[in-house]
Amino acid sequence: MNRLAILAGQGSLPNQLAAAHAPALFVTFEGLDVSPPDNEHLHTSYERFGEMFDGLSVAGVTEVVFAGGLARPQLNPANFDAKMMQLAPRFMAAMQGGDDGLLRAVIAAFEEHGFAVRGAHELLPGLTCAAGLLTGPEPSDADRKDIARARDVLSTLGPLDVGQGAVVAGGQVLGIETAQGTDAMLRFVAETPEGLRRGKGVLVKAPKPGQDLRVDMPAVGPKTVEAAAKAGLAGLVLDAGQVVLLEREETLRRAKALGVFILAEEP
Amino acid sequence: MNRLAILAGQGSLPNQLAAAHAPALFVTFEGLDVSPPDNEHLHTSYERFGEMFDGLSVAGVTEVVFAGGLARPQLNPANFDAKMMQLAPRFMAAMQGGDDGLLRAVIAAFEEHGFAVRGAHELLPGLTCAAGLLTGPEPSDADRKDIARARDVLSTLGPLDVGQGAVVAGGQVLGIETAQGTDAMLRFVAETPEGLRRGKGVLVKAPKPGQDLRVDMPAVGPKTVEAAAKAGLAGLVLDAGQVVLLEREETLRRAKALGVFILAEEP
Repeated sequence: MNRLAILAGQGSLPNQLAAAHAPALFVTFEGLDVSPPDNEHLHTSYERFGEMFDGLSVAGVTEVVFAGGLARPQLNPANFDAKMMQLAPRFMAAMQGGDDGLLRAVIAAFEEHGFAVRGAHELLPGLTCAAGLLTGPEPSDADRKDIARARDVLSTLGPLDVGQGAVVAGGQVLGIETAQGTDAMLRFVAETPEGLRRGKGVLVKAPKPGQDLRVDMPAVGPKTVEAAAKAGLAGLVLDAGQVVLLEREETLRRAKALGVFILAEEP
Repeated sequence: MNRLAILAGQGSLPNQLAAAHAPALFVTFEGLDVSPPDNEHLHTSYERFGEMFDGLSVAGVTEVVFAGGLARPQLNPANFDAKMMQLAPRFMAAMQGGDDGLLRAVIAAFEEHGFAVRGAHELLPGLTCAAGLLTGPEPSDADRKDIARARDVLSTLGPLDVGQGAVVAGGQVLGIETAQGTDAMLRFVAETPEGLRRGKGVLVKAPKPGQDLRVDMPAVGPKTVEAAAKAGLAGLVLDAGQVVLLEREETLRRAKALGVFILAEEP
């Protein structure tokens, strides 16, 4: 029989998963401020992977899900247990490839120790959207052209492992998401001098080809909608099933109030 | 016999060209604050292309160079002369393709009226750089890797007519130049949260494939160097012969003072 463990990062997602999967073990980590729900609970540390793997096995866990924002607390090698001492060199080497690299190495460590790694979107299908116009006005022809151009930019850059998002307005590229994330890009777009601007424009969010959706899904939420409105955009476009819609009701409510459309398209 | 006209935009470049080409006709436009040098001088308006073409022909001009920053003053159709009335619809349609589109249409109009259009870099070879380390410390191995990755981003995006510049630090892309230009991108990079940053990084500037260097060359100058230093970068990389180095001495002096390298590479 399968038992799930929820490896809890920041935000509301871990608790949503816990509510939907009551038998799941809820795992919290030192240095992260997470309030565990009523589920059975294991508190451990990134410094003690041995303790964590043992705790999971004892609880009968067979599969795990990484949920919520992954903060990287300061680790003290003096506190590492034997398993973490053994894994640390791999994790450190993987960090050269950035957070993505580190996550891949952590996933591999879980899999080698017999745990399957699931994606939050598989366990909570309401996290993502089916294709369709979720809210707001119908995208105009100009918006459709901007969407196509933004998708061109994303699919062209994707093989380089860059760009989960792009903003195009009036055919002109105004923002390409880099390591700083979507909100930083939207703040940058909001500062575009008026004279340069050739239309309202759209934000397109999509995973990069080969992105491991089990640990790293593009996400939008109420803040994204507000930042998009501040940047003067007509709307947001998401890949159906592949982009997390955080706080769905609140996000849709704000988008409607701000007159910003949210469109989910088949990837 | 060939005679050159310098179509003067903002900045010091038109006067540098005039000094190097004394027989050239110096053309200024209403609405642009340009002080003409001692060369023979024609003052005209973007609203009167007919008057301008006639003035050039009368002065024996056979070739023109667009020099300096091109401001786009407010035009009043009521003041258009007959030639501009005829050209305006084409220019307006071309503006849908942005400043690049408009410039291509303006170039085409000059060529149709018998004027060859030259590039400032052909007439003033010192504008650009020969390959080599121009100033600052030798780029490190990490810098070389960042340069290669930034070049990958630029060459991948180039066919989409996006990206004259990119910033990569520690293998991580922190900025891709969009319509807002290099300085805006560098300000954005300077705001990267410390925790995200994985190295100093480099700015690479190169023309897009097919970019018409006669009217639109990537350029760096003292401000670029200062913005790069503020963004914590190790250095700037330019395509030799294809990127304008503005105020060369001042740019090199500041780069040296700030410990920022400037490297010109064969494209």
